[in-house]
Amino acid sequence: MLEKVILVVCDGLGDRPIKDLGGLTPLEAANTPNLDSLAAESECGMMHSLGRGFVPGSDVSHLNILGYDYEQYYSGRGTIEAAGVGLQLSDGDVALRGNFGTINDQLIITDRRAGRINNVKALTESLDGLEIDGVTFIVKPGTAHRAAVLMRGKGLSNAIIDADPHKGDVSIRDVTPIDNTAEASFTAKVLNKFLKKSHEILKGHPLNIERQRNGEMPANYLLVRGAGKYSKVPSFKERFDFSGCCIAGGGLYKGVASFLGMAVLDVPGATGLPDTNIEEKFRTAIKSLALYDFVFVHVKAADSLAEDGNFKGKRDFIEKIDKAAGLFKELSKDVLLIITADHSTTSELKSHSGDPVPILFRGHGVRVDKVAAYNERACTEGGLGFITGKDVIPQILNLFGTLHLTGA
Amino acid sequence: MLEKVILVVCDGLGDRPIKDLGGLTPLEAANTPNLDSLAAESECGMMHSLGRGFVPGSDVSHLNILGYDYEQYYSGRGTIEAAGVGLQLSDGDVALRGNFGTINDQLIITDRRAGRINNVKALTESLDGLEIDGVTFIVKPGTAHRAAVLMRGKGLSNAIIDADPHKGDVSIRDVTPIDNTAEASFTAKVLNKFLKKSHEILKGHPLNIERQRNGEMPANYLLVRGAGKYSKVPSFKERFDFSGCCIAGGGLYKGVASFLGMAVLDVPGATGLPDTNIEEKFRTAIKSLALYDFVFVHVKAADSLAEDGNFKGKRDFIEKIDKAAGLFKELSKDVLLIITADHSTTSELKSHSGDPVPILFRGHGVRVDKVAAYNERACTEGGLGFITGKDVIPQILNLFGTLHLTGA
Repeated sequence: MLEKVILVVCDGLGDRPIKDLGGLTPLEAANTPNLDSLAAESECGMMHSLGRGFVPGSDVSHLNILGYDYEQYYSGRGTIEAAGVGLQLSDGDVALRGNFGTINDQLIITDRRAGRINNVKALTESLDGLEIDGVTFIVKPGTAHRAAVLMRGKGLSNAIIDADPHKGDVSIRDVTPIDNTAEASFTAKVLNKFLKKSHEILKGHPLNIERQRNGEMPANYLLVRGAGKYSKVPSFKERFDFSGCCIAGGGLYKGVASFLGMAVLDVPGATGLPDTNIEEKFRTAIKSLALYDFVFVHVKAADSLAEDGNFKGKRDFIEKIDKAAGLFKELSKDVLLIITADHSTTSELKSHSGDPVPILFRGHGVRVDKVAAYNERACTEGGLGFITGKDVIPQILNLFGTLHLTGA
Repeated sequence: MLEKVILVVCDGLGDRPIKDLGGLTPLEAANTPNLDSLAAESECGMMHSLGRGFVPGSDVSHLNILGYDYEQYYSGRGTIEAAGVGLQLSDGDVALRGNFGTINDQLIITDRRAGRINNVKALTESLDGLEIDGVTFIVKPGTAHRAAVLMRGKGLSNAIIDADPHKGDVSIRDVTPIDNTAEASFTAKVLNKFLKKSHEILKGHPLNIERQRNGEMPANYLLVRGAGKYSKVPSFKERFDFSGCCIAGGGLYKGVASFLGMAVLDVPGATGLPDTNIEEKFRTAIKSLALYDFVFVHVKAADSLAEDGNFKGKRDFIEKIDKAAGLFKELSKDVLLIITADHSTTSELKSHSGDPVPILFRGHGVRVDKVAAYNERACTEGGLGFITGKDVIPQILNLFGTLHLTGA
């Protein structure tokens, strides 16, 4: 009988045929005996995480796959990033993600990442807790040059345009409201005051003075974006009765897991980069089944390599995933194993795409089909047919026999 | 040209691979030369009667398959059961299904079925027509210990919690309103008065006095559940221009047919049990084409056997269906034959499940595909792909050329 679940999401795994790979996709071109043999014991299919006709971002695709319809639960990346850095969100909070950048005296952005400064803790501490017009600003460091900014107070809105112009060599810009509500203009006004005040504080911050003395760029401005407004999200455990944990290198995926109330495990060597220790992640996933019902494992680099146009690197990284996936071949059928991706990333266009991705379900009770290769074309012949991200959790609950009956 | 339709619904036909059947489902393990040869002449596919991600009850799945979106037409099982015992429902009626049970002097339920009493006609007659606070109670016998209760009056609601606690050895419970409307609390109040008064009448009923004298349990309490509120349902004939009839053993399926204004035929030996005379049902279905355009045939026992965990019995019963299905091989292609199920029932979990079921369309004009076996895996390769219950009637109308044109 099914008892536990491991869900492996290989970011950006799907791709398109590439001439230099003999007309194969990186996944097809890779030598993947382990994934193929898992597919042969599975029911396979193809998945559009958001449905056909969408190019999924990583945040919304993960929400859908984890059973949280993004149309209901997503209001902006900021809330997820804030959860990812450990902030406890409350109803009505507005959260943003931000970079520490460098601006000059003419308020021109000279570097969006302040020379990729990699420890902003002291800077965030100088801003954390500021209060403006009744709104408290909570500021916490993210990875490298990144930070999360949370606004807590009455009458806030996420209907504001990013302060971050998303490019350098241009002026900073004021936050402006998107709609005509009093909340949006109040939020924009308060946030602009905060950004101005932050700039004053950061300019004189000892760390920046020292950086300038060392010839480094001062991290003297917060470029914020992705405002999201938080409303209470019922936890993964509450909704599906699985205690969940997450094994990931990338901050966003840890953020999604925290946002849903899953435990986030630290795995040494899980970097979110091509050098990541996938075997250690998969081994930890299997071990974690002793403590958790549902283990969500995220593997990042296939996506990043495709975004760099590096299809051979992507192929090689997939072979690294395959090698580690050998560990799953010994997994009991009482563990439902799902291997999929959040979306395709085309190495040619160097971007996410709307092409479906393969998915396999291996475990007790699945209708094992004839598919014996894990890739974008073989899995179109799978027994599951074409599903969407929103179908994944219901299918898990169905297999466990815990999906509720409709009618009588 | 297509002239008539036979729709065969084999309840709970789909299942999951079972180790003791060599990893096959009961349908795959059964020897089904007739169904397979019909599949070979058909366009096949897979169906989720309510869509992916739902575990269908039998009532709502039949509504969907017969072209009545349950979200629009279903408000509770009671209305369907009431139609099934021959009651004519009117707008605003609230109907419930019920069991005659036994309670003791402390109002504890000692048997939910009064020792499976099998003739409750005299008891229902003693309650039929009672009037309380302007509401008339119409009470009719169902099969065995069952009854239908219809409340007719102004200001009634189906937003009430079942009086039936669905288990024995507990106290009877009062009906309580689900929402804050005056209608719900009025309905609960009147129904509670009725149940109390019924108990008084049933306690002193000669049949019960005689049962007690014979050492049998008195059927002294009505356990009601599944309240549904009726609004006028346009008939199957009005909506699709097919005169319809139903051949079924089980009461629910006759109820669904009556609810939609189909004629319900009596077939000797159609019991709804494994001993049912399937050949006689199929033979009658073919004969009925002389009188009706659309014959809906329901075969029950595969579902019940799976709910008992009896997968070998299910396999054997499927072979009995197959034997009878030989009759359809001679059927003219002017008759559109559809063979499917309302849902899967897993013998292992002993419950309905959300796994899709096979469906075949055989008749003039269909795009016959390569599928030559009628089962859960072979039909995933069918030309129809994955459909939902709501697609069945439109596809029938499409094949007949009577589906309306959208646009110009």
